[in-house]
Amino acid sequence: MATTTAAPPRRGAAHLHPSASFSGTLRVDLENRPGAFAEVARAIGDAEGVLGAIDLVRVEDGTKVRDVTVEAASAAHLDEIVAAVKAVRHVRVEDVSDRTFLLHQGGKIAITSQSPVKTRDDLSMAYTPGVGRVASAIAKDVSKVWNLTIKQNAVAVVTDGTAVLGLGDIGPEAAMPVMEGKAMLFKEFADVDAWPICLATRDTEEIIKVVTAIAPGFGGINLEDIAAPRCFEIERRLNEALDIPVFHDDQHGTAIVVTAALLNALKLVGKRAEDVKVVVVGVGSAGISVSDMLLRMGVRDLVGCDRQGALHVGMKDLTEVWQRFAERTNPRHVAGSADDALAGADVLIGVSGPGSISRAGVASMAKDAIVFAMANPVPEIAPEEIEGLAAVVATGRSDYPNQINNVLAFPGVFRGALDVRATTINDEMQLAAARAIAGVVGPDELGPDYVIPSVFNRRVASGVAAAVADAARATGAARR
Amino acid sequence: MATTTAAPPRRGAAHLHPSASFSGTLRVDLENRPGAFAEVARAIGDAEGVLGAIDLVRVEDGTKVRDVTVEAASAAHLDEIVAAVKAVRHVRVEDVSDRTFLLHQGGKIAITSQSPVKTRDDLSMAYTPGVGRVASAIAKDVSKVWNLTIKQNAVAVVTDGTAVLGLGDIGPEAAMPVMEGKAMLFKEFADVDAWPICLATRDTEEIIKVVTAIAPGFGGINLEDIAAPRCFEIERRLNEALDIPVFHDDQHGTAIVVTAALLNALKLVGKRAEDVKVVVVGVGSAGISVSDMLLRMGVRDLVGCDRQGALHVGMKDLTEVWQRFAERTNPRHVAGSADDALAGADVLIGVSGPGSISRAGVASMAKDAIVFAMANPVPEIAPEEIEGLAAVVATGRSDYPNQINNVLAFPGVFRGALDVRATTINDEMQLAAARAIAGVVGPDELGPDYVIPSVFNRRVASGVAAAVADAARATGAARR
Repeated sequence: MATTTAAPPRRGAAHLHPSASFSGTLRVDLENRPGAFAEVARAIGDAEGVLGAIDLVRVEDGTKVRDVTVEAASAAHLDEIVAAVKAVRHVRVEDVSDRTFLLHQGGKIAITSQSPVKTRDDLSMAYTPGVGRVASAIAKDVSKVWNLTIKQNAVAVVTDGTAVLGLGDIGPEAAMPVMEGKAMLFKEFADVDAWPICLATRDTEEIIKVVTAIAPGFGGINLEDIAAPRCFEIERRLNEALDIPVFHDDQHGTAIVVTAALLNALKLVGKRAEDVKVVVVGVGSAGISVSDMLLRMGVRDLVGCDRQGALHVGMKDLTEVWQRFAERTNPRHVAGSADDALAGADVLIGVSGPGSISRAGVASMAKDAIVFAMANPVPEIAPEEIEGLAAVVATGRSDYPNQINNVLAFPGVFRGALDVRATTINDEMQLAAARAIAGVVGPDELGPDYVIPSVFNRRVASGVAAAVADAARATGAARR
Repeated sequence: MATTTAAPPRRGAAHLHPSASFSGTLRVDLENRPGAFAEVARAIGDAEGVLGAIDLVRVEDGTKVRDVTVEAASAAHLDEIVAAVKAVRHVRVEDVSDRTFLLHQGGKIAITSQSPVKTRDDLSMAYTPGVGRVASAIAKDVSKVWNLTIKQNAVAVVTDGTAVLGLGDIGPEAAMPVMEGKAMLFKEFADVDAWPICLATRDTEEIIKVVTAIAPGFGGINLEDIAAPRCFEIERRLNEALDIPVFHDDQHGTAIVVTAALLNALKLVGKRAEDVKVVVVGVGSAGISVSDMLLRMGVRDLVGCDRQGALHVGMKDLTEVWQRFAERTNPRHVAGSADDALAGADVLIGVSGPGSISRAGVASMAKDAIVFAMANPVPEIAPEEIEGLAAVVATGRSDYPNQINNVLAFPGVFRGALDVRATTINDEMQLAAARAIAGVVGPDELGPDYVIPSVFNRRVASGVAAAVADAARATGAARR
């Protein structure tokens, strides 16, 4: 399953298949004669690039200048394609622009006004003196802030930049494009107004203080890419301190989507949560949260593995978080590497990094194995490498089928929470979200390539929002 | 000067003249007969309301249902108008909606994406996996955050809600609509993306920590409505700690616009800054900053008055801030009330609250007096009360001529600072802004009703931005 290109992998784990995320636009000068462009196209094809849009820029002095967009499998691959085009006789490459970087120039989000400020009347209502009456009304009854300000729809996407994507501790500035991307998705999928807050501190107490301080203007806090174990304490303490939801998406967003996909994958292979052996590779914030949600949904045999191998009680030098994790998992006391733990396992959930599991490990799994290799941007193991070994394969990438992407959860979860002005996002609301996502895939649609809806399925966010709002009302977490 | 309505003031200082900021829409059921609406219009006129838009909602059973918009002078006045309409025979008022509150429903700003996220390709460039390359590039060279994220255009509008408009300490939630309004103006006038950050702390050290922590994602910090004296230390220490501009608009924005207006007003009356006697009423953050800028521009005789009267050296129990202020002002050692200090003064600058100066005080000023009564939303003294007593009158309100409004300064100031990625907004940049604003009013346009350009004059922000950017380059405050 998974890949649609014929080319075998040849550039290591980073080489998967050509994707828009590694695409570039080449401005090429071509002799204005028949066959000139065909030579360029052939060079791109021979270099295994995928030819995209071709635009004519201008014709001058017997030369045609064209913008040619190509998709590559990696930045290095794009360089190879450019070199191949440059090697074509009578072709000059004027310029190469990286489409992903171009898209980021100037940032990806902006502010807009909900009403015009074109006249004195507009100004006197939206700003002074009119705004003074609105401010006074809120001062008299602070609950009116929910009606009369953007708080009702605003979410802070907060990070300290210490655990960003698969890149790790890259700092608050480098985290900005990721948080901006998240804000775009919030808007696009659920009309939530999210703003990135990238913190120049990684101190637990300071982060708690900062988020508490900025909370009045927000209806929810999305914690993001904060390293374990402090992310647990930060989330717990903020949830205690604030009367708005605080949701660490790396934990709970991932858990919701993995649970949704697993509900459907188990249905497909005809296994029950109570009976399967699950191996979770990567016992960070995501791994722990996924494990806990699977335990809540009925899984009994779950082994968590990190660099030290399978976590089990009695293991030495466990952190407090891992010690408690070991106590509630691994009932068979499995020891050894992640690959060892996979022998006979039904489900592999990878939330670690590339190379943390091997083809042999996957090959040792039980019949109708389910493999979720969700490390981003490079999966634990490329789907190409385990073709035929598993009944269902899913990744975190948008350029393979079965994308386990948090965007299926967080927009709808916050939409639902904001709609009822929820005070928190509790376990019941999260499970309701997972069931709503899984339910979007109909029984007749379910298949190895479709255990989880597309991120572009517009029914997902609205379905999740409705389910989350209902669960909030049922559990007393709704303000209205 | 100033007012255009014939009605004399009759509801105290709060009653000035009808304005959109106190407008409401009445849904009225009228008998479907000739003259029915005329009676309603007459009732509104008799109650001194201003009739605005009239929309037909529906016709049913011999009844016409209309939405009638009226402008009032205050919330109480609107109630009186509604009562007058209700008293008309055979008229039923179904509903009254306050247009200012309606405009605030749902908040006034929103987030938007700069590029679409409609396809898998979009997603793979704006979010994972493509965004990972952008994040990595910034991690390697942190200065790239200016190119590749919204930092280049983002300003945090930060308040603790302790000195909001003329309302005082109303808390962070009640400050939200004001900060949102500010964000609207940033966008509308200078295409700056500003987000409100309303803080649930009023502790100087905590505010400094919070703003320092959230700074990485912003290209500038606009401090707003933070009470004196802590606003001084907060601004100073943040400017030292951060490599982006930190600008307390209540101080410097006000100072810039007042200076601009005064430059033109002095030109109009043919007086020089060096020669005039200036009285500043209200020695808070705005009063001090205005005074300092006027001293820098050449004023020698400036007296600051607060509730204790004119501040002078040797006065007992002065705060540290006031002691230093007294030392650099009031060379004639004027004592007594604000009204006393006004005797023979050329310029009155009010940045206090309603009622802090009297008609008699203004009447005692020198010939061709200049009165800036800028308390918001209610001026120190209504222009109607001092008609004929001053050569130039200005207020902070949008519903009088000569509106001394910070919106003339802060959008262009930040636009200019962001354009050159300034590290600070220094005195030279601020003076350049004042001169640019004053310069928009041409010599042939200058008049008692026009010493300061309209807030809707589109040349202001761009002119200010260019002048500020030039001054930043000239003083080494520009990053590029």
